[in-house]
Amino acid sequence: MIVVPGPASPNLAKRISQETGIKLAKVHYKTFPDGESYFRIEDDLKGEEVVVVQSCSPPQDKRLVELLLMVDACKDLGAERVIAVVPYFPYARQDKRFLPGEPISVNTVIKSIESAGADEVITFDIHEVHIMERFSVPAHNLTAMRLLAKHVKSLDLESPFVLAPDQGAMRLAKPFAEVLETDCDFFIKHRDRVTGEIETKEKELSVEGRDAILVDDIISTGGTMAKAAQILKKLGARRIVAACTHPILCGNALQRMRDAGIEEIIGTDSIEGPYSKVSLAPEVASFLSKVAE
Amino acid sequence: MIVVPGPASPNLAKRISQETGIKLAKVHYKTFPDGESYFRIEDDLKGEEVVVVQSCSPPQDKRLVELLLMVDACKDLGAERVIAVVPYFPYARQDKRFLPGEPISVNTVIKSIESAGADEVITFDIHEVHIMERFSVPAHNLTAMRLLAKHVKSLDLESPFVLAPDQGAMRLAKPFAEVLETDCDFFIKHRDRVTGEIETKEKELSVEGRDAILVDDIISTGGTMAKAAQILKKLGARRIVAACTHPILCGNALQRMRDAGIEEIIGTDSIEGPYSKVSLAPEVASFLSKVAE
Repeated sequence: MIVVPGPASPNLAKRISQETGIKLAKVHYKTFPDGESYFRIEDDLKGEEVVVVQSCSPPQDKRLVELLLMVDACKDLGAERVIAVVPYFPYARQDKRFLPGEPISVNTVIKSIESAGADEVITFDIHEVHIMERFSVPAHNLTAMRLLAKHVKSLDLESPFVLAPDQGAMRLAKPFAEVLETDCDFFIKHRDRVTGEIETKEKELSVEGRDAILVDDIISTGGTMAKAAQILKKLGARRIVAACTHPILCGNALQRMRDAGIEEIIGTDSIEGPYSKVSLAPEVASFLSKVAE
Repeated sequence: MIVVPGPASPNLAKRISQETGIKLAKVHYKTFPDGESYFRIEDDLKGEEVVVVQSCSPPQDKRLVELLLMVDACKDLGAERVIAVVPYFPYARQDKRFLPGEPISVNTVIKSIESAGADEVITFDIHEVHIMERFSVPAHNLTAMRLLAKHVKSLDLESPFVLAPDQGAMRLAKPFAEVLETDCDFFIKHRDRVTGEIETKEKELSVEGRDAILVDDIISTGGTMAKAAQILKKLGARRIVAACTHPILCGNALQRMRDAGIEEIIGTDSIEGPYSKVSLAPEVASFLSKVAE
């Protein structure tokens, strides 16, 4: 086995290599003056099982094309199998036709990754779990919740309470709360498909004087988190922390969340940057050790 | 038949529709705050032969993913066949392994477009013609040279002379010169694969007092054109005009070419912008009329 780091995930790939002892390939990247991506893999991949690590977080299209190029190149360079580790799976929020004439974009992405030659796909906390059934190759949706919860446990929180900012996030909030050995609940959110406006219903919760942890898969514009935090503050929550697998944080997400009273944002290296406080490497390593058995 | 305009080629699609009388679909586009592309096609595509028009010029990866999403969506929305018109074919300059460990990127692109569901592909003046043999579906490399040459003919040039800035461009310069009923020649160019540096050999040519037209498929950084223009100026050429199918013109290409004495740049709507002075629509229309027969 050999780990091939994609340009989006050099640190995660390095940590996976460190956790597993699997060799890390040396890859040179550049972008041509016209914007096309280029790379060159120094190691011999002939007959190898190759683990390509490339998250497809923003800029998603560039990251996705790099992933396709890398998977295809590994195969073309003689790899026997390619496992694509794609922590952030792009276009997972366009998993159905909300309005007539729309694409089901995530299906196109799956098709392109498979046609590039991926034999197995690993992702993390995909936005809708039913997407996993659409792969033709073995595909696995791992979760960052245990790792994130362990990190949060090490913070000194007061009578912590876990909250899913919408019903869909409950599947994440539950295992998170289990690690913290506390209770969790959720808010009801409605998003207008045309304007994108979010409305979150208020709900009575016993959070007075307690620290709240908002848990979700993605923080994108921060709108959902901000709405939930405002309600929690009204209900008397003490500190509010937001934890997620994929800290996209686009536009003025940070300001918006800070204004709503969120004190800390904890993300993973699905998106490498200042909020990747938790590494996904242990979960990937544990998965790969099972593959290697 | 129905023409579906991609976000890169709204004007070309409109002109193809005008030239052919084929209906132009109404498509709404937007980019989500996180950078993902979205569109919605208003027209019913069931049972239709759909012509998706989407050049994959910079930003190539975004344009390519949009193309994949559109082709796949058209099929999913019931289109019987999809013809993808991709005037600028991305990654065509990475058509072989120049150094060990490199991807053969254009192959990955072909694979992805085919797996998205394109039944036929039309491109223009692809960087290396042998690439066309790598498609599994019928694929056609049309040329803009006659259209460009007709436009240049309408300019008032003095004893025009056509020059290919490197040997590869001779296949374009020849038909161009035929329309102008004049002679053509080429320079020998060498590009260092590591540094990207271009070296163009000087050559004796009878261009003293004549107007020269430099002809190539792509103008990217303008380096190749600038080197050729400097030599032509030395040899006593009067005006120098540069014509190409794909005016990418990245970085300081314009300044560099102007400094080298190039007075005018003529490109096509393969890349919609200030240098798309010639439309590819008549060539596409003529091709589609043959398909419809």
